[in-house]
Amino acid sequence: MTDIIVQKYGGSSLKSPERIKAVAQRIIDTKKRAKSVVAVVSAMGKSTNELIGLASQVSEQPIAREYDALISNGENISASLLSMAINDRGVKAISLTGAQAGIRTESLHKKAKILDVRTQRIQDELDKDQIVIITGFQGINQYDDITTIGRGGSDTSAVVLAAALRCQECEIYTDVDGVYTTDPRLEPAARKLTEVTYDEMLEMASLGAKVLHPRSVECAKENEITIHVRSSFNEHEGTRVRKESVMEVNQPVTGVTLNEQESIISIVGVPDQPGIAGRFFSYLAQQGVNVDMIIQSVENKTEPVNNISFSVLEDDLSLATKLTEEMAQTLKAKSVSTDSSIAKVSIVGVGMMSRPGVAAQMFQTLGESNINIKRITTSEIKVSCAIDRDKASQAVQLLHDAFGLAVVTQ
Amino acid sequence: MTDIIVQKYGGSSLKSPERIKAVAQRIIDTKKRAKSVVAVVSAMGKSTNELIGLASQVSEQPIAREYDALISNGENISASLLSMAINDRGVKAISLTGAQAGIRTESLHKKAKILDVRTQRIQDELDKDQIVIITGFQGINQYDDITTIGRGGSDTSAVVLAAALRCQECEIYTDVDGVYTTDPRLEPAARKLTEVTYDEMLEMASLGAKVLHPRSVECAKENEITIHVRSSFNEHEGTRVRKESVMEVNQPVTGVTLNEQESIISIVGVPDQPGIAGRFFSYLAQQGVNVDMIIQSVENKTEPVNNISFSVLEDDLSLATKLTEEMAQTLKAKSVSTDSSIAKVSIVGVGMMSRPGVAAQMFQTLGESNINIKRITTSEIKVSCAIDRDKASQAVQLLHDAFGLAVVTQ
Repeated sequence: MTDIIVQKYGGSSLKSPERIKAVAQRIIDTKKRAKSVVAVVSAMGKSTNELIGLASQVSEQPIAREYDALISNGENISASLLSMAINDRGVKAISLTGAQAGIRTESLHKKAKILDVRTQRIQDELDKDQIVIITGFQGINQYDDITTIGRGGSDTSAVVLAAALRCQECEIYTDVDGVYTTDPRLEPAARKLTEVTYDEMLEMASLGAKVLHPRSVECAKENEITIHVRSSFNEHEGTRVRKESVMEVNQPVTGVTLNEQESIISIVGVPDQPGIAGRFFSYLAQQGVNVDMIIQSVENKTEPVNNISFSVLEDDLSLATKLTEEMAQTLKAKSVSTDSSIAKVSIVGVGMMSRPGVAAQMFQTLGESNINIKRITTSEIKVSCAIDRDKASQAVQLLHDAFGLAVVTQ
Repeated sequence: MTDIIVQKYGGSSLKSPERIKAVAQRIIDTKKRAKSVVAVVSAMGKSTNELIGLASQVSEQPIAREYDALISNGENISASLLSMAINDRGVKAISLTGAQAGIRTESLHKKAKILDVRTQRIQDELDKDQIVIITGFQGINQYDDITTIGRGGSDTSAVVLAAALRCQECEIYTDVDGVYTTDPRLEPAARKLTEVTYDEMLEMASLGAKVLHPRSVECAKENEITIHVRSSFNEHEGTRVRKESVMEVNQPVTGVTLNEQESIISIVGVPDQPGIAGRFFSYLAQQGVNVDMIIQSVENKTEPVNNISFSVLEDDLSLATKLTEEMAQTLKAKSVSTDSSIAKVSIVGVGMMSRPGVAAQMFQTLGESNINIKRITTSEIKVSCAIDRDKASQAVQLLHDAFGLAVVTQ
């Protein structure tokens, strides 16, 4: 019998009293196969958004400390309800807030890093044979103020707790069966993966596969915790995210991902001075804009001016455009233009490290169907192409087929 | 300039983002006339009931510890929103939970008593010139678990904090202008009182005037804190609840109160044994039933049997009836009957202590209008009569008029 199992249940798994009761039963069943169970929970359904909506009605820019004090209540509510539902079935459970569970974070609000978990209270409750339900997404800082660790942070809370409690595996329950070769809504032949490596998952998570938050994967990688992503709606085995595949890697590409929400911003005619790009992108980063796929080119040999263009997520577009226009004025650039009709399609796989020609095969596949590639970025295990948004789902299907992802060969 | 002002805002004063912003402005205005302001808040509008509704959907009898962990979130939410709204106007404020504010309670859940307030954190924040917003209704026990102090408890939290911070007065903001001679919905000539004594307010609060929770009045009496009950919707002076009237008491009766939710339970034919009434009412009290207006009579001189009847609040009726029927069987009583068409009308006033004949005047007033008195209970400053419920509002009007309450003579 396993010693401690750490599970995490997301908002969609807890969105109604009925779903909470179903999760309660699932946790009770888990307790039959483990000495101890720790369950980390997100807020019910969209309840965090409702709290954010209230905040925006009383303050345009809510002060960060109170923002955290406010939105952490979503997890408090789901944790106590879940504990009630378990107790109602005659099984002992106790809910602990981030503070009670000893989750100590940086003093920073809204995106604090977890520094340490003081597990004494958790251990005490486990020793009393209690199932321990812990609020995800939140902790407490050195001033005893409530902090939150950023959106999607409950996954990270669960992995950190698994590490602190010396578990090898962390089960993350969500509304999908696991990690797929691509989005099944785009490609019906998409296949659930039995396992992926941390690095593949990191690329996929940051490229738009919304199953796991990248921070949680990084944290699992650092602590060598296997994440088992599975559905809270059925009993199927899901996808294990782990250090390396147990079996030999046969395929160069593990998955195809799509991010439809990209936009390109271009500054035309920036006078060529050393260090301009560095200054510009540092400034954007300071303001919290994540920039991807940068292209810089020199236009005119005799009186050199730069054209700089880069892509951003659509969420950041209005802020990024505003900042770029300010900067363009300071730099005496000619003009700023934006293009919001971009999508980014990517192939990911540790197998491509040992196989040359994977990128070329991708470009060729897209080219044969007259899909124009506007930008390319690559990493060791990923190739991404910016293309027209209206070709996005076609591109996913073509690549899924070209790299043989529908067929199990692992 | 006053040193510290403690205010309490109820749920109706905070029921929407707009109301929260209005309260924020009111607190900022208060800060102009005091060195420090502490505001204690209830949950927004009916939000506590919504949380209780969720609890009832996951568990028929929610475990008390989790019930407290759940419903305390209502106050957390309103406190952080109010602090945001104040900060949004450029004034420094910080919200503190019961735990952060050092409100230590008994370990008991759902109706813990406050044992102690460790004011260090509050003082530290006040020293930084912060307005301190504190969640009412909640505290923390010796196990670091969240407790609540019973419904209406935010008034008590405010008074306890005023005492701990050595204030002389505590302002309680509500949706009415103050304490009236009777319910203005029943008697349009009802008049707002400038002041009432603790004892009068205690009688009125426990008799159904829902302005202040009796515990908060008891707590104010013990600590000699003046409670200023006033409206959050206007700037009028309200009613001060204090040790004794500053002016000479001219009127024997200060107010007329009505409780329409009474029921009478009777056990007929209880064999006459010593100690039966004591055993019976102790048992009801242990089960949490509050009993009022007990009448016991001996029916038969040769073979003595008792008839016991008493009144309970309608909320307690089904539980009290069940317990009484069980007890009647044990005691071999003949039968149990209930009457739910009762109301209790009362006159309250410290002035009646020095004026004989006040009770007689009440009975006469009701009798002249053919209102049958079914039961009578009295205290030093109160006379209550149980009457038919359909005569209730008529009785209030008659008594209000008979004791001259519409006219100011204080």
